[in-house]
Amino acid sequence: MSMSRIRKEVDAALLAFVDRQRPGLLAISPELAPLLAALDSLLAGGKRLRPAFCYWGWQAAGGKEPREGVVTAAASLELLQASALIHDDVMDSSDTRRGQPSVHRRFQALATEAGWSGPAAPFGEGTAILLGDLCLAWSSEMYESSGISPERIGPGRAVYDLMRTEVMCGQYLDLLEGVRGTGTVDAALRVVEFKSAKYTIERPLHLGATLAGGSPEVVEALRSYGRPLGIAFQLRDDVLGVFGDPAETGKPAGDDLREGKRTVLVAQTLERADAARAAVVERLLGDPGLDRDGVDELRAIIEDTGGLAACEAMIERYAGQAAAALAAAPITGEARIALEELAVAATARQA
Amino acid sequence: MSMSRIRKEVDAALLAFVDRQRPGLLAISPELAPLLAALDSLLAGGKRLRPAFCYWGWQAAGGKEPREGVVTAAASLELLQASALIHDDVMDSSDTRRGQPSVHRRFQALATEAGWSGPAAPFGEGTAILLGDLCLAWSSEMYESSGISPERIGPGRAVYDLMRTEVMCGQYLDLLEGVRGTGTVDAALRVVEFKSAKYTIERPLHLGATLAGGSPEVVEALRSYGRPLGIAFQLRDDVLGVFGDPAETGKPAGDDLREGKRTVLVAQTLERADAARAAVVERLLGDPGLDRDGVDELRAIIEDTGGLAACEAMIERYAGQAAAALAAAPITGEARIALEELAVAATARQA
Repeated sequence: MSMSRIRKEVDAALLAFVDRQRPGLLAISPELAPLLAALDSLLAGGKRLRPAFCYWGWQAAGGKEPREGVVTAAASLELLQASALIHDDVMDSSDTRRGQPSVHRRFQALATEAGWSGPAAPFGEGTAILLGDLCLAWSSEMYESSGISPERIGPGRAVYDLMRTEVMCGQYLDLLEGVRGTGTVDAALRVVEFKSAKYTIERPLHLGATLAGGSPEVVEALRSYGRPLGIAFQLRDDVLGVFGDPAETGKPAGDDLREGKRTVLVAQTLERADAARAAVVERLLGDPGLDRDGVDELRAIIEDTGGLAACEAMIERYAGQAAAALAAAPITGEARIALEELAVAATARQA
Repeated sequence: MSMSRIRKEVDAALLAFVDRQRPGLLAISPELAPLLAALDSLLAGGKRLRPAFCYWGWQAAGGKEPREGVVTAAASLELLQASALIHDDVMDSSDTRRGQPSVHRRFQALATEAGWSGPAAPFGEGTAILLGDLCLAWSSEMYESSGISPERIGPGRAVYDLMRTEVMCGQYLDLLEGVRGTGTVDAALRVVEFKSAKYTIERPLHLGATLAGGSPEVVEALRSYGRPLGIAFQLRDDVLGVFGDPAETGKPAGDDLREGKRTVLVAQTLERADAARAAVVERLLGDPGLDRDGVDELRAIIEDTGGLAACEAMIERYAGQAAAALAAAPITGEARIALEELAVAATARQA
């Protein structure tokens, strides 16, 4: 089974689920159509990394055909992710997502263009909170209705539950780091672990392997590959958030800097910066009006202090740990090739 | 089984669930303790109406002992409600809930009092979005781990799923009415139906009866009682939101007016008001700085136009329909007595 074939199946499962919900929503009220349109638009984008890791975790652990059930359960992770993105964008006041207006900005524009009398911004934010809630509810609904047997879906649910709790707690720790403005590398790494690494790679693999009824040895081997790869993935994402091509990231250049994200990259920079440069970082980071010159100034400091090089070295080290764990894992050859490809995709210098 | 006995069992089930989550959260980080404290505080309040309707729907439909499973499934509705309240308070910028600071205000105060360098209000709002998400995820986790048999929990899940989708869609329609500022009685009633009536009474009853494996006749009879009672409940809540005693509602006097809620009560008033009074309503409603005099002025208009009397007449009519449906329902005597008591509690003039 090729990676692109699985991706098409995941897309089809997602579309089928949303299409089954559509008539019920429109029966409540035709005025719910904009919610569906916003969701369709958001789900059209995305790299489907989490479903891919879930599917290949299942395959690696010896999952047996038919695979419809696991594809549907894996695809449900995209609804969980849609929920997280929609709510993240409200929390960060982000204007764009996947190259389009974020959900709250989309509904704010809807209200403004319609000329409605009430305030448009709170309407946009409220709608985004609700659509994120709906996606979260639908992710569990899609998982539960995947058609996987009761003996498998229960143990998988325990992983799913853990993953949801971890990502939400990781996001809180991220907010906490942001408001406290402390910013050690260790503190930033702990956020990365729960908010991103486990959620994006380790738990989806764990879920897939559990749905296959994989042995504890296989599950542990996959998690040992997923854990460092997840960290490398997020560190790469942090680098792309500052230096990436907007056409590839779907976000304006320097958006992470404008949002003031307290990433490992920023922490590595601050640990190396002299007082004058640290003061510039603290002044410019999180300035919503940061212009091109400001972005360039921050980029130069991140490079010149050696913050970027330190972050790249970490990516290399963690990716190396993942590769070694994968080489030693007792899994099928087909899954090994797919997981090698996924490791490259998750840490590539292009988004 | 008495109503108060069930309430104690629901409280115990909720506490047991949160206590099982506690060590896992603190193992991720001790810094997550404030999230647990905020949840404990919120869950200490509340009338447990939804669990009560779910339990008595189960009992009415002939649910058999042991009842631990249904009590746990019913109690999970309080986590769903906690999620809705936390997110509602962010959307409405409410300062208080159940007589205490709302979750976003609580975390805003935490950041301010700690003297952290970042902006406190977005930290409060972001935390409330995340804690609401966690409660939503935990509500399904608690439902699924209730211990109810697979033959019953699946059909119940279909009702649960529908209920979640309905309430989120109803909340969107509520936001839409608010921003458009149209405000007919019919539009407000449609919001009431999905945002509140079905969610608070009809679906919890439906869920309980389904978990008992109730016949289609019993399920339909309970829903015929729950549907009008749910509307009467929300209309009473709207009246209490304007005229209720703050000591009983847990909200400052006139808070619904300050938040500009487009209730049926407001719509009934506007349909009866002359141009001058309608202009006063439109000017004062939703003014966050509305003082005691402004609240009194709006109250006088709502009374003098006959808006209040019209709303009270609707409550009486819907409550009467519910009583007639209950009288005709083929259910156990014990459940009938409890559902009669619940109907009184849900529509009483004191909160």
